[in-house]
Amino acid sequence: MKGCKVFFIGGGNIAHIVLGELKDLIEKAYYFDVKETGLNAVKIEPFCVPDDADIVVECASVDAVKKYAFDVLKSEKDFYIMSSGAFADEDFLKEFLRKLQDSRCRVFIPSGAIGGLDIVNAVKDKIFEVTLVLRKPPKAFGIEVNFETLIFEGNACEAIKRFPQNVNVAVTLLLAIGNLEKLKVKIIADPSLKMNKHEIFVDSSVGKYHIIHENLPSPNPKTSYLAPLSLVASLRKRYQKFIVGG
Amino acid sequence: MKGCKVFFIGGGNIAHIVLGELKDLIEKAYYFDVKETGLNAVKIEPFCVPDDADIVVECASVDAVKKYAFDVLKSEKDFYIMSSGAFADEDFLKEFLRKLQDSRCRVFIPSGAIGGLDIVNAVKDKIFEVTLVLRKPPKAFGIEVNFETLIFEGNACEAIKRFPQNVNVAVTLLLAIGNLEKLKVKIIADPSLKMNKHEIFVDSSVGKYHIIHENLPSPNPKTSYLAPLSLVASLRKRYQKFIVGG
Repeated sequence: MKGCKVFFIGGGNIAHIVLGELKDLIEKAYYFDVKETGLNAVKIEPFCVPDDADIVVECASVDAVKKYAFDVLKSEKDFYIMSSGAFADEDFLKEFLRKLQDSRCRVFIPSGAIGGLDIVNAVKDKIFEVTLVLRKPPKAFGIEVNFETLIFEGNACEAIKRFPQNVNVAVTLLLAIGNLEKLKVKIIADPSLKMNKHEIFVDSSVGKYHIIHENLPSPNPKTSYLAPLSLVASLRKRYQKFIVGG
Repeated sequence: MKGCKVFFIGGGNIAHIVLGELKDLIEKAYYFDVKETGLNAVKIEPFCVPDDADIVVECASVDAVKKYAFDVLKSEKDFYIMSSGAFADEDFLKEFLRKLQDSRCRVFIPSGAIGGLDIVNAVKDKIFEVTLVLRKPPKAFGIEVNFETLIFEGNACEAIKRFPQNVNVAVTLLLAIGNLEKLKVKIIADPSLKMNKHEIFVDSSVGKYHIIHENLPSPNPKTSYLAPLSLVASLRKRYQKFIVGG
């Protein structure tokens, strides 16, 4: 199974997890990062996509996507993007999709810290409304409350502007739905919680779906463990012959 | 985008929905069925995989998978299988996987009437236990009860034997988990329900997840509408350049 050559944009926590999980699959790894990160991979400097890389994996930041995405499209290599929040910028999204059509790349946005996107993709054209409810302990908002408190209710763009720390989850869901009008976001401070609890409600002519996530943190506690593992699953699928849930 | 040539094994409800949804994508369709089904496609008789088909889609029955799967593997074409229940037969599964390794086919099992398999795939190696709870109105079991009644609790194999009508859902989930010991199944007669309600509980070292499905029937009321649409989404993904959710 060995043989995949990966170029990571961002050599931090996520790249470490991917390298650890995909030892059997990755033959060679490169990375670009503004700092030394101790990743067991060849550091590239200045930024360029190594010719012999098979795929490019962004796991750095929204800014890194915006800065380097067009260079990746020029490389014609398949591109996995974790910081989907970059596509909250509509002009950037349009330009990116236009250039993508002219390239031989395929772009993959792993499901990240949420799931059930298989349902959303299936019912996409038949959605009445999707609600994303982000519940966090009050201290995450720098407040103290003794009861469940609605911090925000509105559309996804507004939520992304006001709560940029949830930008990837909201934008990935929005990209899957493909229609801004159909996604409502609620953000709730909930003193009964020790960790975040994300919920997705899908109402459609196909059925009603409710996905509840109680994510534990990854070894780096700023990221849900589910997010890097969704990337690992996406990369693994590329080389599988028997794909379940597909 | 046109250009895909599809061979359907089974020309019934699911094939009709796929053809209707993927008009923009499917250039030519063939089908094999034991009866005339009125599908707008070239009927093949006796069974053979047409040379110029790009992909083979099984949407017939567990028996059809068992009967024709090895012919499809010989054709070296990618193979989408809806009747995953065929793989409840462990000997068949082993033989199939062995022959698959020697072929150039890739096999895709769409998520069918359930979702959240993106989560299951991501946390696969880190699962403590998954519980599949199938709730139906009592008349689905031919009984009358006035309160929630547990009809079955046990492992997936036993559930599949005793309730073969749920075989695809249970086997697809089992294939995603990859470990029989970790899947528990509960079947409940619930007089408060008008339609089926499927729930998946995932307990893992990555987090806890709970996916609740209230599926509406497809135009043919024996199938959840979600099942053919998950196949449509899988097929569409094949030709997409921007794939959200892995």
